[in-house]
Amino acid sequence: MKTLNIASIPGDGVGKEIMPEAIRVLEKVAQVHGGLQFKFEEFPYSCDYYLKHGAMMPEDGMDRLSQFDSVFLGAVGDASKVPDHISLWGLLLKIRQEFQQEINIRPAKLLKGINSKLSNPKDFDIIVVRENSEGEYSSIGGRIFHDDNEIAIQNNVFSKRATKQAMNIAFDLASKRKGLVTSATKSNGIFHAMPFWDEIFDEIASKHPNIKSESKHIDALAAYFITHPHELDVVVGSNLFGDILSDVGAAIMGSIGIAPSANLNLNGKYPSMFEPVHGSAPDIVGKGIANPIGQIWTAKMLLEFNGEANIAEHLLKVIEAVTADGFMTPDLGGKYKMTEVTDEIIKRLDK
Amino acid sequence: MKTLNIASIPGDGVGKEIMPEAIRVLEKVAQVHGGLQFKFEEFPYSCDYYLKHGAMMPEDGMDRLSQFDSVFLGAVGDASKVPDHISLWGLLLKIRQEFQQEINIRPAKLLKGINSKLSNPKDFDIIVVRENSEGEYSSIGGRIFHDDNEIAIQNNVFSKRATKQAMNIAFDLASKRKGLVTSATKSNGIFHAMPFWDEIFDEIASKHPNIKSESKHIDALAAYFITHPHELDVVVGSNLFGDILSDVGAAIMGSIGIAPSANLNLNGKYPSMFEPVHGSAPDIVGKGIANPIGQIWTAKMLLEFNGEANIAEHLLKVIEAVTADGFMTPDLGGKYKMTEVTDEIIKRLDK
Ligand SMILES: CC(C)[C@H](C(=O)O)[C@@H](O)C(=O)O
Ligand SMILES: CC(C)[C@H](C(=O)O)[C@@H](O)C(=O)O
Repeated sequence: MKTLNIASIPGDGVGKEIMPEAIRVLEKVAQVHGGLQFKFEEFPYSCDYYLKHGAMMPEDGMDRLSQFDSVFLGAVGDASKVPDHISLWGLLLKIRQEFQQEINIRPAKLLKGINSKLSNPKDFDIIVVRENSEGEYSSIGGRIFHDDNEIAIQNNVFSKRATKQAMNIAFDLASKRKGLVTSATKSNGIFHAMPFWDEIFDEIASKHPNIKSESKHIDALAAYFITHPHELDVVVGSNLFGDILSDVGAAIMGSIGIAPSANLNLNGKYPSMFEPVHGSAPDIVGKGIANPIGQIWTAKMLLEFNGEANIAEHLLKVIEAVTADGFMTPDLGGKYKMTEVTDEIIKRLDK
Repeated sequence: MKTLNIASIPGDGVGKEIMPEAIRVLEKVAQVHGGLQFKFEEFPYSCDYYLKHGAMMPEDGMDRLSQFDSVFLGAVGDASKVPDHISLWGLLLKIRQEFQQEINIRPAKLLKGINSKLSNPKDFDIIVVRENSEGEYSSIGGRIFHDDNEIAIQNNVFSKRATKQAMNIAFDLASKRKGLVTSATKSNGIFHAMPFWDEIFDEIASKHPNIKSESKHIDALAAYFITHPHELDVVVGSNLFGDILSDVGAAIMGSIGIAPSANLNLNGKYPSMFEPVHGSAPDIVGKGIANPIGQIWTAKMLLEFNGEANIAEHLLKVIEAVTADGFMTPDLGGKYKMTEVTDEIIKRLDK
């Protein structure tokens, strides 16, 4: 019997609602497939935790999380309780950076039955590979001067090592897919970082003569997601650009409530972390209408990157069968509650 | 007779094709309305100019441009000839920064007859106010170390002065419109610059109790443009975020070929500059199918900010009558050529 030890962090807002749903699904998956079991331990790290303890997690929090095979996260952040830069740098970004989860994989794919927000979406199936540890997400910088003369300086730091790694993964993925890598750049505006990014991309691209490659500026590329999503395959972007593009991708999928993501540790020293793309959505908390698919699709990625690719594919097929038959929450235009969508997924896992 | 002295810079690619179209329209506008005339002088500053002269403009280029009431720009950049960071920092960004065009105004509005790329666009009418002189577009930074250890550092510089100015303009605009200002932030990820941005926004917002205000993270906001565009009014963003959102806005308008923009100098020391949001589109050069509406709508903004608001409104009505009747280039799903669309606009200006 293979046991996966999972640290679950429901976090804030709808994170607390959808996490039990995804766990219900994973338990069912294990039961149906046999040979696999989950041990979950829940950690209450969140903005509420901060309000009680003055920190997003205890001193030994990272140590404790490091004992697990994977971290399964709901959503973090509730600016009405804790400023976002405190809550995120104290939990989500802390885990990504300290656990060296340098790659974030974010699929954007139109599931059957879902009405895309686009008038003519055709079939798109994009994977965003996001550099996940540096770039625009750096805590280096500060402020100087007073009153109206005040300025803030923010340092973005791009390393060739992490940039190459993200791009290599993008080319690897593309070689198993449609064979196209699109690099998100902004070398026309961002003077130092982005020409550096482009040079590295051209170098990696030249080593993959059988994969098509192209660079598009982030503004034009975000627009391209809307106008020509079916022409994209694998998109590689910096921390910020990957962040933006994956939300744009989620929107054209029909709702940011469905998009999944995997924060991958590649050196084997720490766990990887799996979390949906959406946020904690304080406005719909308590209504029972949060879309569980983002967290459940994320559970699929957790299975995939824990060596269970077949079981993972089966789960995605079941999710898609459920959307195809119209079991959807209101964000997708459906009339079902969160738990009803999950129930339907669980029911079909049995078959 | 009021004379407007305009420096026209067609630039690269389709810029050279659409500039004469917009000038034809402006000449017609002057003829129809009387009391107004244009003097145009064309400047060949472009990537081709760079290939001949080793610079995007001559030493006295800025001096010469500074003599005009406004600069009217087509599109700049052709990476097959000159790296983008050279061509843009040598022309477009140089003009914006040296002429202290600290504000960029970019409307995104659905014109009649145009099929938005969205399945349910409803009526949206958004103005993006973009800080246009600093932030992520800074030439401070550089590289260190060698081979795979190389890193690039990019400094973003945000001043309270320019940030406040952009926000104040956003609130002013909102007071004449639906009364909502949305701030594009990313204070959950961008540690120094964006919490600074948010603080300033909250300060300005508190001085405008009659205007509703909200902050949204750039990733969620880009998605929101797709899922709920009709709920936005005025959006204020940093240089980069304004850049990205205005292209997303252009895409949901139906094509990035139609969106206009105004780079405003507010201290009266230098000319303002008017340019469409789209780029030089090398792939469609020479086919006669470039959409002239971006440049013509930009001409409308040139009129507006040169004290001719009524004439400007009339021009926009004519543009919309033309799209409403289906005269559109292929990017909008139409079958007309660039010149045919312009001809139709000119014909209707006569009436
Ligand atoms: C060409 C480029 C430097 C420019 C920008 O990023 O500002 C363009 O995208 C724009 O939106 O005007
Ligand atoms: C919450 C926030 C810091 C985070 C990010 O920007 O990475 C989120 O938007 C995401 O996409 O995972």
